Amino acid sequence: MPHALRIDADRLNTALEDLARIGARGDGGVTRLAFSDAQKAGRDHVEARMRALGLDVRIDAIGNMIGIRAGREDGPVVLTGSHTDTVGTGGRYDGALGVLAGLEVVATLNDAGLATRRPLAVVDFVNEEGVRYMPDMMGSQVFEGRLRLEDARAAVGTDGTTLGDEVDRLGFAGPDAFDALDVHSFVELHIEQGPVLESEGLTIGVVDGVQGITWLVFRLRGQANHAGTTPMSMRKDAGYVAASIAQEARRLAHEVGGAQRVTVGSIAFEPNLVNVIPEEARVTVDLRNPDPARLADAEARLRQYARACAADEGVEIRIDDLTRVPPVTFDEVIVAEVERAAARLGYAARRMPSGAGHDAQILAARWPTAMIFVPSVGGISHNVHEYTRPEHVRAGADVLLQTLLALAEG
Amino acid sequence: MPHALRIDADRLNTALEDLARIGARGDGGVTRLAFSDAQKAGRDHVEARMRALGLDVRIDAIGNMIGIRAGREDGPVVLTGSHTDTVGTGGRYDGALGVLAGLEVVATLNDAGLATRRPLAVVDFVNEEGVRYMPDMMGSQVFEGRLRLEDARAAVGTDGTTLGDEVDRLGFAGPDAFDALDVHSFVELHIEQGPVLESEGLTIGVVDGVQGITWLVFRLRGQANHAGTTPMSMRKDAGYVAASIAQEARRLAHEVGGAQRVTVGSIAFEPNLVNVIPEEARVTVDLRNPDPARLADAEARLRQYARACAADEGVEIRIDDLTRVPPVTFDEVIVAEVERAAARLGYAARRMPSGAGHDAQILAARWPTAMIFVPSVGGISHNVHEYTRPEHVRAGADVLLQTLLALAEG
Repeated sequence: MPHALRIDADRLNTALEDLARIGARGDGGVTRLAFSDAQKAGRDHVEARMRALGLDVRIDAIGNMIGIRAGREDGPVVLTGSHTDTVGTGGRYDGALGVLAGLEVVATLNDAGLATRRPLAVVDFVNEEGVRYMPDMMGSQVFEGRLRLEDARAAVGTDGTTLGDEVDRLGFAGPDAFDALDVHSFVELHIEQGPVLESEGLTIGVVDGVQGITWLVFRLRGQANHAGTTPMSMRKDAGYVAASIAQEARRLAHEVGGAQRVTVGSIAFEPNLVNVIPEEARVTVDLRNPDPARLADAEARLRQYARACAADEGVEIRIDDLTRVPPVTFDEVIVAEVERAAARLGYAARRMPSGAGHDAQILAARWPTAMIFVPSVGGISHNVHEYTRPEHVRAGADVLLQTLLALAEG
Repeated sequence: MPHALRIDADRLNTALEDLARIGARGDGGVTRLAFSDAQKAGRDHVEARMRALGLDVRIDAIGNMIGIRAGREDGPVVLTGSHTDTVGTGGRYDGALGVLAGLEVVATLNDAGLATRRPLAVVDFVNEEGVRYMPDMMGSQVFEGRLRLEDARAAVGTDGTTLGDEVDRLGFAGPDAFDALDVHSFVELHIEQGPVLESEGLTIGVVDGVQGITWLVFRLRGQANHAGTTPMSMRKDAGYVAASIAQEARRLAHEVGGAQRVTVGSIAFEPNLVNVIPEEARVTVDLRNPDPARLADAEARLRQYARACAADEGVEIRIDDLTRVPPVTFDEVIVAEVERAAARLGYAARRMPSGAGHDAQILAARWPTAMIFVPSVGGISHNVHEYTRPEHVRAGADVLLQTLLALAEG
């Protein structure tokens, strides 16, 4: 009776602790940058666990690793997993939870002596974080096919190294090609990395899509002038226009409402002196919305406001895109499956978009995909204090188990 | 008939060109930082001119230099002058005009064979700009008595040198003590360094005071969070509060009106990344008003706004003073004298406060003082493109001549 199956929470939480010892920073956090010795050690550890669970382990030329559990029938695999690389001041859950929960599902099925109809597989994608080598979600992009292996290998790191050289030095590559792998569906369990679930007292986020992201940079050029001798009416203050854009960004977020988010994270004035009217200013705006029309509308309104404000002040303006990631909508069948699993297990849940980027959004372009979120305490992530309670780790892995079973049997 | 006397504009404009060759940058600008070899050469050049005009040259222990022209009677001297040090990318007029116009007045009186009743003197104050060694207006502060010689000599430069060592190395000091000098009044001719006279089509600024200056720095601490996963309502965005303060500063300047100026020249966010809500922000506000009550009111209202805005956002705030210079009101008798001289000469003039700091505001604490402004093309100053038209140089020097005559005879 698969519906009665439950994962072993102690075993999973111990697995999280074991992996966190590799690349441990000594302050509770973890550093396993992609294509580093620490990440190779982490992947070796995961590979050993996969083999111990009897999985058929395959590694491709960029370093993505998949452990496959045979089904009662051949055919497309139901895939789960995430990544085991971290940011510089990483926590113990981001990525690791998705990979280790996938292995816990396999262990649970093994213990129960249960073979699923379809094969089940757990993937550890390489370089999801994109800290040392850009782009992020690199492994899943190679896997999905949109990023060519040779382009990924040619990436130059922040430390001047070339990715391909590091792959070769570490023996990171394997002999397998995944373009032959037939994927049925993909489900990724991940920590929320935000405060919504915790603040609403919920246990499970049923992730129905990923916010589109637009990064704009506004470059303003006015006229440097003396703070004391220049009347207010004669100023061409690039800094004032930048601050006005920042204000409007917030106003716009409230006006659009819903899942719209607008963040002004970076600003710079030139010459940046107390008593000189800024000649130049640069301000960034990060706009996110799961709805492409609303996202485009918010962007258009912000651009219009900025141009008008600059014109009023006599300041030249240039607006450039830094990033433009379209929203992703996950597969309704799988989303509903996650929702049903959470309900059946009695966990309070809500549908929500992901505000951060994940491997799942890459795979969603080719295969039916969805995600499961569990709460992050304080919404904190990419931080050594990242923490998800053991009972929420359990809940997420049980929802993952039920969802995978439904997909693998259905 | 002194009222018919006029300065020699060609001679004065040539003198400006001659001095501009010392420390010439090759781009039209001048670099004669205080206590540098270039400034010593500039002061030597001025000293030679003083001696050629028959002045009794005296130099004090910090390097202020005064050339005295005897009057028909002994007694307090009518003083004029300015400074010959410049900022790093200085122009040809800031300071130099006041010193050389004073010498031109002396030359004109010499040519006319005219002895004034009171002695007349021209001063070249050292280190008005305060670029390499703080504070600015250092020479006039020592002269006036508020800054002790040993404190000035102990100043450490931006290059790590000690001022006293440079004074000794350059032989900058002289044997004279100016505390024995009896000053009747002080008049300083200076370029406006702002756009008001030019934009209003005026030739002479009758400077009736110097704006008070308050520099505040607002230090904000919120919470760094993910731009995608953090709902707008749950943010503690230090950058948003900083931008709001910058906006309010502009609004306040318009609301207070008149001579109120408010400038936000410097800002910084931490971590200053596109997709991270700023944890910390720092923003400066430069408030200026010639009226101390209005200045204090504007400051109080800005502080109140900032505290309320920070509280609304859940951001900690600390507000520090960086600078606090009280407004200075010049001597009404001398101001009226300048106004009369401009009118008599047929120059369109207006009363105005100085927005920048000048040696005259230091001397005003002890002696009757006023200033004369002439237009700066484009309001540009502290810049190699600083320019004042020869006809405005002439006008300013003629107004200075008439004012000094009135003071020296009255």
